[in-house]
Amino acid sequence: MLFRQLYDNETSTYTYLIADETTQEAVLVDPVIEQVERDLQLLQELGLTLRYCLETHIHADHITGTGELRSRTKCQGVVPDKANAACADLFIKDGEILQVGDIEIKTIATLGHTDSHNAYLVNGDRILTGDSLLIRGCGRTDFQSGDAGSLYDCVTQKLFTLPDQTLVYPGHDYKGRTVSTIGEEKTYNPRFVGKNRESFIHQMNNLNLPDPKKIAEAVPANERCGKQSVA
Amino acid sequence: MLFRQLYDNETSTYTYLIADETTQEAVLVDPVIEQVERDLQLLQELGLTLRYCLETHIHADHITGTGELRSRTKCQGVVPDKANAACADLFIKDGEILQVGDIEIKTIATLGHTDSHNAYLVNGDRILTGDSLLIRGCGRTDFQSGDAGSLYDCVTQKLFTLPDQTLVYPGHDYKGRTVSTIGEEKTYNPRFVGKNRESFIHQMNNLNLPDPKKIAEAVPANERCGKQSVA
Repeated sequence: MLFRQLYDNETSTYTYLIADETTQEAVLVDPVIEQVERDLQLLQELGLTLRYCLETHIHADHITGTGELRSRTKCQGVVPDKANAACADLFIKDGEILQVGDIEIKTIATLGHTDSHNAYLVNGDRILTGDSLLIRGCGRTDFQSGDAGSLYDCVTQKLFTLPDQTLVYPGHDYKGRTVSTIGEEKTYNPRFVGKNRESFIHQMNNLNLPDPKKIAEAVPANERCGKQSVA
Repeated sequence: MLFRQLYDNETSTYTYLIADETTQEAVLVDPVIEQVERDLQLLQELGLTLRYCLETHIHADHITGTGELRSRTKCQGVVPDKANAACADLFIKDGEILQVGDIEIKTIATLGHTDSHNAYLVNGDRILTGDSLLIRGCGRTDFQSGDAGSLYDCVTQKLFTLPDQTLVYPGHDYKGRTVSTIGEEKTYNPRFVGKNRESFIHQMNNLNLPDPKKIAEAVPANERCGKQSVA
């Protein structure tokens, strides 16, 4: 399996390129519109065919590259079940598997940051957590129908029950960390350690953070799959 | 082996944490002074003992975290043979191996970006290239006794002769790419593809780039191992 983590410096967003090196089929998880040329060049150089652009959720902090990549490659856009993105080609729900060559990408619904959010377990040993579980943090729950109780339940019951050595690849990191493990996050994530459901909710409801800079443009754009270049 | 890539957003610098998970001994390659607290916290949480801070070269674009990390952990500072850093504990030259538990870090002198620069081959399958070979690029050769001809020779004769599947982990990337391979760089690196030694030198001598922002403070600070906190 080819596995490449890619970074957007402006929004601290991670995109993941995953490909079966035998069939040369690829998926991009959470692509960023400003990085489409970089991603297309990499796909071309590696001789890969982009099958899917897969979203963990409808983002509020950046515009997805999915619409543009779909126009250019004929890939399919895949979003979580119930996501408000009628433009998507496929909707994927808890427990479903997206197959990319021999690679199995298993959907684990992890609501709370938004009301339609998936994490994706890749070949059983690494999980792309989007904005649910972050390294020593977690996604916000104060906009886009976020719900702190749901996030607590999904992280503690679905993610923290994975094997300790499972690699955690988040949707963002703001301190330059690229990867963690479930064992580390269970032990050291300050948002969860020593918190029960009630105290977690209280914490999340009192972060008092400003809205993401791009939310007003990003959410409606992402509900159209980010495809701004076409009327 | 534990292998963690870490990123400094301001200077687009990669630091690498490498550790033997049995002996819990660790090395940090090219640490950045602004990230020392992050790095110390990670070492502590992972239960690691920092044995070495290992530099690929005397940097011009950021101040090293080595001095501060050495004060706080009693690790040894390791720099390339002939580097102008009398403060270092160890000088390491072409062909020498730094052993960290069971991990073998082999020195490959890769001069040209500066006149004392090493790449480090980790357990034979991944190379930390510092500012010699970058992803689809290479380090500059127009300051700090840089020499384009030397860089061409080292990259083409020492790095491009490694197996194609060798993973390339650079000292910087400015487009959010985290890793490449020797095979990819031989095929797609525009600084080298289609260039002979003469045309490479001509190219490098005509980049006409401004000096790195921090060069005036970074080079003298790094010649003191970055240890600004002690008189």
